[in-house]
Amino acid sequence: MSGGPRSPTVSADAQARAGLSRLIEPDDAALGSLVESLGAETVLARIRDGTLDSTRLASYRARLPDLDVPADLARAAEVGSRLVTPESEEWPSSVDDWGPRRPLALWVSGAGDLAALARRAVAVVGARACTDYGEHVAAELAAGLGDRGWTVISGAAFGVDAAAHRGSLAVAGDTVAVLACGVDIVYPSSHHRLLADIRDRGVVVSELPPGARPTKTRFLGRNRIIAALGRGTVVVEAARRSGAFNTAGHTVELSRTLMAVPGPVTSAMSAGCHTLIQAMNASLVTDAADVVDLVGDFGADAAPGRRGETRPHDGLDDACLRVLDSLPLREFAGPASVARVAGLDVATVLRGLAVLAVRGLAENRDGGWRRDLSR
Amino acid sequence: MSGGPRSPTVSADAQARAGLSRLIEPDDAALGSLVESLGAETVLARIRDGTLDSTRLASYRARLPDLDVPADLARAAEVGSRLVTPESEEWPSSVDDWGPRRPLALWVSGAGDLAALARRAVAVVGARACTDYGEHVAAELAAGLGDRGWTVISGAAFGVDAAAHRGSLAVAGDTVAVLACGVDIVYPSSHHRLLADIRDRGVVVSELPPGARPTKTRFLGRNRIIAALGRGTVVVEAARRSGAFNTAGHTVELSRTLMAVPGPVTSAMSAGCHTLIQAMNASLVTDAADVVDLVGDFGADAAPGRRGETRPHDGLDDACLRVLDSLPLREFAGPASVARVAGLDVATVLRGLAVLAVRGLAENRDGGWRRDLSR
Repeated sequence: MSGGPRSPTVSADAQARAGLSRLIEPDDAALGSLVESLGAETVLARIRDGTLDSTRLASYRARLPDLDVPADLARAAEVGSRLVTPESEEWPSSVDDWGPRRPLALWVSGAGDLAALARRAVAVVGARACTDYGEHVAAELAAGLGDRGWTVISGAAFGVDAAAHRGSLAVAGDTVAVLACGVDIVYPSSHHRLLADIRDRGVVVSELPPGARPTKTRFLGRNRIIAALGRGTVVVEAARRSGAFNTAGHTVELSRTLMAVPGPVTSAMSAGCHTLIQAMNASLVTDAADVVDLVGDFGADAAPGRRGETRPHDGLDDACLRVLDSLPLREFAGPASVARVAGLDVATVLRGLAVLAVRGLAENRDGGWRRDLSR
Repeated sequence: MSGGPRSPTVSADAQARAGLSRLIEPDDAALGSLVESLGAETVLARIRDGTLDSTRLASYRARLPDLDVPADLARAAEVGSRLVTPESEEWPSSVDDWGPRRPLALWVSGAGDLAALARRAVAVVGARACTDYGEHVAAELAAGLGDRGWTVISGAAFGVDAAAHRGSLAVAGDTVAVLACGVDIVYPSSHHRLLADIRDRGVVVSELPPGARPTKTRFLGRNRIIAALGRGTVVVEAARRSGAFNTAGHTVELSRTLMAVPGPVTSAMSAGCHTLIQAMNASLVTDAADVVDLVGDFGADAAPGRRGETRPHDGLDDACLRVLDSLPLREFAGPASVARVAGLDVATVLRGLAVLAVRGLAENRDGGWRRDLSR
């Protein structure tokens, strides 16, 4: 593989970043700072020649035997993926908010343009072992976001993640899967079809190079990319102790909008969402309209006000309401009797009865009145 | 009845308040202001002789034919109830926060002492047409409050109210029912047993005199008493347009703590609770501990922190976590191989493996290591 073709469009900086992405673990702020100050090429050279001051960073030397940038680029091209670095048009500027923790490079696979997809995007995440409720809500929420032209960012995991991707795909919406392994790795392996569907329209993204396996720390690092790609993060279901808290924390760290879907207080899978609302000030959201209301652009995305249907007694004045309340339900009562019950004079009662009759709230028989319950 | 016995303990002011409670509709701030400035006796006299300036207040004259204070007091005594006025020991001072909207008098029935019951009290209210979930949660919440020595205030209605009273009674807790009719009226009529059980230990309260029937405006006025008797109000289930919003509004008006229980976003009966959290800044509560945490006295009632169980990898340092992540699940790998995967030097890996083995997280066979999944 090491003799494979080298893409002519890959700059020296991008090649160095590709190389570093093979050597380091994601979310290494110390290394990110070095790259910012010295440049990726210099940092890679200093790992190679062992002249880094930090013992911890020098430990990345253990992986030098695996370093073969041309082979990685060739392998990426073979599996239909590309290297996206800060100098690329496709670089999503929202990840730059991480500063030295921003990814060195992103490996991207799929028909979409990552920068365009990330322009109006929301992360939807949650428990792998979600309930039917969580799966249903995740899919509905994602479909609603897709319908409104919003990209759904998630992690392609079992449970909420998969339901969110599928909900978006079901309405031909845009969706991005961020992986904790190389974009050529199908993880979990049963999500082969799901990942293929995501690539057809959106993209699959990772800061790890082709062939890299998922590990727990990589999942944590991956979560910060999910949080950074969305304007906000919705946690659909989460146990009180859940990986979703990690993504939630990243979201707060980035000053993005943290949202959580409530559920039954009897469900352990909603307990984490309730804790996020109570203790991390997450906004309670019930559907895509709520989400867009919070993360959307003012004006264009403002949610219409919600209220119940109008009812026949809306807008009645105090006197009319008192007359209405004083009307018997079964027997018919004369205006004088109604006046006594209502504590109003008869003239006021007669005016009120007229208003109520017009609205179909009072019915009249032989000079007596009762409430009209047909409305 | 008008020839019945007059209780010698009823002052002239209390008698006037009893009389006014027969003539007026609850929550009449204009009348309340007059009573504050002129005294109840004078206001009653001016309604009687028709010298009130306000046409609206003068309309209360329509009920003068029904006025018979001695008969009302006798009837109250017959049904085992008593008149409580601001000068009584049993007057719950929390209702005074309503200023001119405070009740003129309260008719009270039951074994409890209203002032004592209201000292540590929370209102628990919600939909009449609640779901099984709402009924379950209301009962659990009320039982939890009862267990912690808190009085549950509610309205004895179907649904959430009844479940809340029953939950409190089930743990021999204290509970108060506030009615929108006379305390001698069983409303709803099927709650005869429930109201009797409440009276056995707590009290049934109304600002309406014996025999008064419930009306819609009386329910609204009643809700302000429920809100005033509790340190806060918990809405358990409510449709988006629900009477519980009225009690919620009163709670906010009084600067008491408004709380709401979340539920499935797919349930119309939880939509109102979610709206309260979103739009009225209600605090999300999941159980009695949450409620007491919000309304309880600092120190005595502070809820213990909640967290998940501890796990074997809690507190592992970064290097150990990286070693753990790099261990194969099935095959056994040598330390050098683990070091390469982890990006760590072999010495660090060996130290990490020792820690992991002690915690039962890594298993060793013939010098190779893999993750121990038995933990």
